[in-house]
Amino acid sequence: MALSFPRLLQSSRRILPTARRGLASSTIERLGTDGPLMSKAVIHNDIVYLSGLIDLSGTSDTVTGQTQTVLNEVDDLLAKAGTHKSNVLSASIWLKDIERDFKDMNAVWVDWMDPDNKPVRATVQSPMAFPHLLVEIQVTAAK
Amino acid sequence: MALSFPRLLQSSRRILPTARRGLASSTIERLGTDGPLMSKAVIHNDIVYLSGLIDLSGTSDTVTGQTQTVLNEVDDLLAKAGTHKSNVLSASIWLKDIERDFKDMNAVWVDWMDPDNKPVRATVQSPMAFPHLLVEIQVTAAK
Amino acid sequence: MALSFPRLLQSSRRILPTARRGLASSTIERLGTDGPLMSKAVIHNDIVYLSGLIDLSGTSDTVTGQTQTVLNEVDDLLAKAGTHKSNVLSASIWLKDIERDFKDMNAVWVDWMDPDNKPVRATVQSPMAFPHLLVEIQVTAAK
Repeated sequence: MALSFPRLLQSSRRILPTARRGLASSTIERLGTDGPLMSKAVIHNDIVYLSGLIDLSGTSDTVTGQTQTVLNEVDDLLAKAGTHKSNVLSASIWLKDIERDFKDMNAVWVDWMDPDNKPVRATVQSPMAFPHLLVEIQVTAAK
Repeated sequence: MALSFPRLLQSSRRILPTARRGLASSTIERLGTDGPLMSKAVIHNDIVYLSGLIDLSGTSDTVTGQTQTVLNEVDDLLAKAGTHKSNVLSASIWLKDIERDFKDMNAVWVDWMDPDNKPVRATVQSPMAFPHLLVEIQVTAAK
Repeated sequence: MALSFPRLLQSSRRILPTARRGLASSTIERLGTDGPLMSKAVIHNDIVYLSGLIDLSGTSDTVTGQTQTVLNEVDDLLAKAGTHKSNVLSASIWLKDIERDFKDMNAVWVDWMDPDNKPVRATVQSPMAFPHLLVEIQVTAAK
């Protein structure tokens, strides 16, 4: 099928930035690229990097509900990337109120995590992109 | 040696979650897995990931003492993983009060770090899991 | 050329820490090692790790200006490491005031980022090393 000239230009623009420089980015795969700011997952050298995930559903104002929603999305993205929570290497967790919510978040975390394949983890307190967010979780996994 | 039925079940439970799905997690090694929330170290593809480490001893209420305790544990875990601080690639550091403690933490850090093999680093302020914690350090190293 | 005894000692001190232990750190390359606290970039196994970068110029008190300065340094360090923003795998972003500055930081980010090669990202609020700092960005890229 012949491409119109503007369409061809657009297509070229998408291919050239890497090829022009001779960089080997062909081994980088990206998933969930619809958002304007980031990909939801990047796969390179059998490592799956996920973005910091938050509960944008607005359906829960508790850390328990938001953590469950976020971990469901972790499961979903890991499956799409061809891996599973048993292969998670590292997790970063941010809480809006760590003194209040550490225990409740951990309860959901322990229930979710594969007890025979615990990742390393770091958990600190930081406000996130929107005031209603109570938890953000970022995971890196082997493939 | 024959295994009792309950023992066999337990053993199977530990092996199957990965094998059932045909995922190759056999190359992931985990150390310090006694805690309920995380492993202290995960080794994969010659990279050693450590958890965010904190001083739970309660013996120091200064950032100097807590940083020293944490870096001692970094040394210990890196040794158990078969590597050394000269191979540290990256460090993330959180301080409870960065304006007050940045300088004192850095003094311990510079004294500890291999000056010929400085990692990349990011240091920000975030409260941690317990109110008495003044510093948390997470390290990734090559093997 | 013969080395004086103190000079020889100093030279040995620099070479031995790794060789003595028989660790293979020869595959780790470090750039921007002049500062006392960290390297600006570490390269290992075709992954380029950058430090958390901040605008120390003192020329901008807006998140727009500081983000631009930081991303210019990201470009510069990635080029020195032999790669490019189209190969960025992951970015961590800290803002001093996320409610006020999230939108303005994102505008500079979207303008900078390769839209066909979006990294994963996590953005939270944390004060940084000096009170005038509004943004810190840490990037990991494939080579």
